[in-house]
Amino acid sequence: MSMHFADPATLTPEELGAGSVFAPRFDAQGLITAIAQEAGSGRVLMVAHMNADALRLTIESGEVHYYSRSRQALWKKGESSGEVQKLVALSTDCDQDVLLLTVEQTGHGAACHTGRKSCFYRVLKDGALTDTGEPRLFDPAEVYAKPQ
Amino acid sequence: MSMHFADPATLTPEELGAGSVFAPRFDAQGLITAIAQEAGSGRVLMVAHMNADALRLTIESGEVHYYSRSRQALWKKGESSGEVQKLVALSTDCDQDVLLLTVEQTGHGAACHTGRKSCFYRVLKDGALTDTGEPRLFDPAEVYAKPQ
Repeated sequence: MSMHFADPATLTPEELGAGSVFAPRFDAQGLITAIAQEAGSGRVLMVAHMNADALRLTIESGEVHYYSRSRQALWKKGESSGEVQKLVALSTDCDQDVLLLTVEQTGHGAACHTGRKSCFYRVLKDGALTDTGEPRLFDPAEVYAKPQ
Repeated sequence: MSMHFADPATLTPEELGAGSVFAPRFDAQGLITAIAQEAGSGRVLMVAHMNADALRLTIESGEVHYYSRSRQALWKKGESSGEVQKLVALSTDCDQDVLLLTVEQTGHGAACHTGRKSCFYRVLKDGALTDTGEPRLFDPAEVYAKPQ
């Protein structure tokens, strides 16, 4: 993995916000928040984290990789489920502490481990979460079944 | 501020993901990541953080409040700039550690402090950030000028 990211500490806020130098601001744990938004529909599919290796692999392979905080491991999206995310565009915000990934959600088109397209399948109504009725595009029990 | 949020530690992962109990998972600093997405256009406008008070005020007033980590203060979006965000819908993800706000961006329609609609006005191309040419809807020097 040859790609090098600039150190944001070497840039002024003006350079971070207006310049062309990509200097992702990884946090104290070496992670940055990444939002996956579906190309075309504009649906926010999921939010996860990347470390520098996940970001490099994503850019170099064109397939989205994250870092799992719970498993403490690099993770290619779709490696178990087949629901690979193809990177269409990568953007960052004015202080470079968030990444916005425009992706094509392949497989069944489901980013969420529940089998739904998006992890955001509930809205708040009168203090309670209401399911929006988003269909399950795959059966998690089948997709994540352990080999016999 | 009377609204009470359930403690996510009292819920199983299944209840967190499939239930109707809203139990936002604030982190060790008492914050949760909030994404503002524009109603209609689907543009991701900005990403910031909320503490419990900011979330309560947002739900109760219908106008989006955040918590500024740098200023360590509750912050009503648009209080200086006039670029108030009206809450259209509030969603959370399958493990309730992110909020997705659907908002109407009032004022000049600019969520970013640079005067642009979205904070995501640069995309990565061949290792460098390229400005997408998103217009400035207000002049930050004017809007944030200190009173004489």
